[in-house]
Amino acid sequence: MAGNIPRPTIERLPLYLRCLARLKSTGVDVVSSEELGRLLAITSVQIRKDLAYFGEFGRRGIGYDVDSLARQVTSILGADHLQRIALVGLGHLGQALANYEGFREHGFNIAVMFDADPSKVGLTVAGQRILPIDRMVDVVKHTGIELAVLAVPAHAAQRVTDVLVQGGVRAIWNFAPVRLNVPEHVEVRYENFIVGLLALSYYLKENRGS
Amino acid sequence: MAGNIPRPTIERLPLYLRCLARLKSTGVDVVSSEELGRLLAITSVQIRKDLAYFGEFGRRGIGYDVDSLARQVTSILGADHLQRIALVGLGHLGQALANYEGFREHGFNIAVMFDADPSKVGLTVAGQRILPIDRMVDVVKHTGIELAVLAVPAHAAQRVTDVLVQGGVRAIWNFAPVRLNVPEHVEVRYENFIVGLLALSYYLKENRGS
Repeated sequence: MAGNIPRPTIERLPLYLRCLARLKSTGVDVVSSEELGRLLAITSVQIRKDLAYFGEFGRRGIGYDVDSLARQVTSILGADHLQRIALVGLGHLGQALANYEGFREHGFNIAVMFDADPSKVGLTVAGQRILPIDRMVDVVKHTGIELAVLAVPAHAAQRVTDVLVQGGVRAIWNFAPVRLNVPEHVEVRYENFIVGLLALSYYLKENRGS
Repeated sequence: MAGNIPRPTIERLPLYLRCLARLKSTGVDVVSSEELGRLLAITSVQIRKDLAYFGEFGRRGIGYDVDSLARQVTSILGADHLQRIALVGLGHLGQALANYEGFREHGFNIAVMFDADPSKVGLTVAGQRILPIDRMVDVVKHTGIELAVLAVPAHAAQRVTDVLVQGGVRAIWNFAPVRLNVPEHVEVRYENFIVGLLALSYYLKENRGS
């Protein structure tokens, strides 16, 4: 598997997986790239191109086996086994994420939590005790956790990132509205709530007929 | 502007806007669909097809004027004027959204907030008082708010949705992990945190070389 697969191709894989799960739940066994494309409004060429990075799926003129493709995309995404996560920042967003039920379904487990606020350290959220942030390097190193969720204020994000990277974290899901400087081997995903609102705004405007 | 523009085309517009804003901030004045495609890893054909739904932008052989295209996409998205939002559910996620600073930048203003919990009603979050949920129909009708954010537990989401629709809401951004039944004129956007984690999971697996 080559390392130079375009980022948006990767970002589309979870969408394919979600679409396949829905097809499966409605009893669909086989789907063409044209039908997948119609459901996701992506060209079938793009879909075939995306999947071709990972091997040969489907049969020309027949389509993809929904169940088999779903399992293969799950495996490509590394979501076929348990993955432990470090959560940093137990403000409102952090606590919402700690209690989010969808993670466990896909094999993600928030295994450790850190906060810089002494009044939060020692409290239990979603069954886990919040640890002080000055133990972060040691705990992350010791547990071998490589995936971290950043739910800290913007001004603290870079400092926390540096410590996480020092501890061995290689993938950061950043909710703080700030770009992070990381070594090349570390992947950052920026979560930006505005994208969702903008899409909805379009529909409102459109249906208003303006 | 036709009403049958594919949903993923709409979902890509905010990504185009974000990319254009970044180009602008780095001093780029003109961009080709090939370059935009490279940055977003979308085929240039897809980009031209997406934009063609809304008119003719750019010049063949030259490209798009970054500033002009950004303004036009902003206008297409209806993000060129103030939009008031109702927020329902002031648990951790709701409070995180209420305090999210990125909304105002794009003209979104959380104008009213509701919660079903009597112990929360009357409290102030991000400068707004939380109103009781039984006033929701009246307040939404009276203010003419058409856009609502749903940060309530899954079991309450459909009931709250019915009330919002009764009050005149036509676009719902749903963070509750449940499908909603709405009349055809109401648009729902489902926010699913798992997509972000799955993409990161891929990078971890990939860089591990497994």
